[in-house]
Amino acid sequence: MAPASPSPASQPFSPWALLLEYNGGPFVGWQRQDAGISVQDVLENAAARLNHGAPVAATVAGRTDSGVHAAGQVASLSLPTGFTARQVRDALNFHMKPHPVAVVLAAPAPEGWNPRFSAIHRAYRYQILNRRARPALLEGQVWHVAAPLDAGKMHEAAQTLLGRHDFSSFRAAACQAKSPIRTLDRLDVSRLGDLITVAVEARSFLHHQVRNLVGTLRLVGDGKWPVEKIAQVLAAKDRSAAGPTASADGLCLIRVTYPVEPFADSSP
Amino acid sequence: MAPASPSPASQPFSPWALLLEYNGGPFVGWQRQDAGISVQDVLENAAARLNHGAPVAATVAGRTDSGVHAAGQVASLSLPTGFTARQVRDALNFHMKPHPVAVVLAAPAPEGWNPRFSAIHRAYRYQILNRRARPALLEGQVWHVAAPLDAGKMHEAAQTLLGRHDFSSFRAAACQAKSPIRTLDRLDVSRLGDLITVAVEARSFLHHQVRNLVGTLRLVGDGKWPVEKIAQVLAAKDRSAAGPTASADGLCLIRVTYPVEPFADSSP
Repeated sequence: MAPASPSPASQPFSPWALLLEYNGGPFVGWQRQDAGISVQDVLENAAARLNHGAPVAATVAGRTDSGVHAAGQVASLSLPTGFTARQVRDALNFHMKPHPVAVVLAAPAPEGWNPRFSAIHRAYRYQILNRRARPALLEGQVWHVAAPLDAGKMHEAAQTLLGRHDFSSFRAAACQAKSPIRTLDRLDVSRLGDLITVAVEARSFLHHQVRNLVGTLRLVGDGKWPVEKIAQVLAAKDRSAAGPTASADGLCLIRVTYPVEPFADSSP
Repeated sequence: MAPASPSPASQPFSPWALLLEYNGGPFVGWQRQDAGISVQDVLENAAARLNHGAPVAATVAGRTDSGVHAAGQVASLSLPTGFTARQVRDALNFHMKPHPVAVVLAAPAPEGWNPRFSAIHRAYRYQILNRRARPALLEGQVWHVAAPLDAGKMHEAAQTLLGRHDFSSFRAAACQAKSPIRTLDRLDVSRLGDLITVAVEARSFLHHQVRNLVGTLRLVGDGKWPVEKIAQVLAAKDRSAAGPTASADGLCLIRVTYPVEPFADSSP
């Protein structure tokens, strides 16, 4: 008689680091919730298929909101020992079809590594399509602003926000962070044709911080506010002093950095 | 008694030049046909709304195939005299909703100008996503090739195709052009991360020429063919000597050039 397969409970597990790309459009966000399907649902359901149907819990570097995209999200989960990195990547991708979520790279997770708490730097890109006509090719991946924006003035205003500050003016009411102090390392605004790109980098962000920064800079861009007002908005430490939250569509998590790069030896 | 509105027949018409962006995914191509909805259908149906419901015929610089995208297609049509450029653009965009087609710019068409026959240069971009994982963010806008491609070798092979040649080896059987002779001005292959971009420029192209060039260069990229074979394929003047046609998904018409730029005074 053939030996029975090992039961899930008795099997050793190995932790994996995953580099994820997803289109946030159809999802309620990263996090599992009752309201609809999440990126976490899609990934964990696929992982369960590699674990004899038993649940698998994934953790993530940045819990993106509904509609927010990722080109370089990093997640972690454990699977029964024995898979190669290539098998993990390809099998998860197979089981996540047809959802717009892809494991670009898989690598053994470094000892004691956590995708969220080990991260030392996060980079987001925010895209604004600045023209009268609505987007056709980039639909769902840009914030469409029809009024002409002065990207140079937006960039100038953005530079007054760099460094370590109390970002309460740019923090969502629902933000669960203990402190509103963050260090903003980069906030560059540049235009290429109709497309304005905002490159944002920091060790970590408050909830809605990037979208609130962009929504506020837009008021400088269309001339409603002078460049100098942004420093006053920051100093107010009051959410109502800043501009509205920019659309989720334009936001994409580009890169998460760790002291030891989990994917250094991986090939796409 | 108020005068009746002028009947369409008695009304003078003004010709317009339109810069169009579209996602080719949901369409049977530019050209109207029975099989499904075309970009031409969407544009002409919107234009008819500005012409008392009477039909409007549009002509175009490049009759893109099913699934092919455009960021800089140029079309022409005539509308009853009296609209401003801004009204033409905004009204057509309003009536084309929710189809992924947008009039980015509208301008009065120059005297005697024809979007197809006046064009002196056309630029296409072809994108290949070269990694194991299928596309999530760029789904439908790239050709997914999982096998590793050497973009440097593809570029080297591409350079042997530049200049004036008989491109019969890269011409679709259905091509209606009188001559297979074309002058290829640019065929650059470059890689940025997982994305390989092919930039292609010529005065005009044969049917499927760009996709057949890319499908053939891919065989050099994955090592099946040596770089030197491409010159032999060209010399064969035989479609069966070249590689397969690359997916429509990766192709985008970027720019059409005219001796007098119709949109020089337009603002987006």
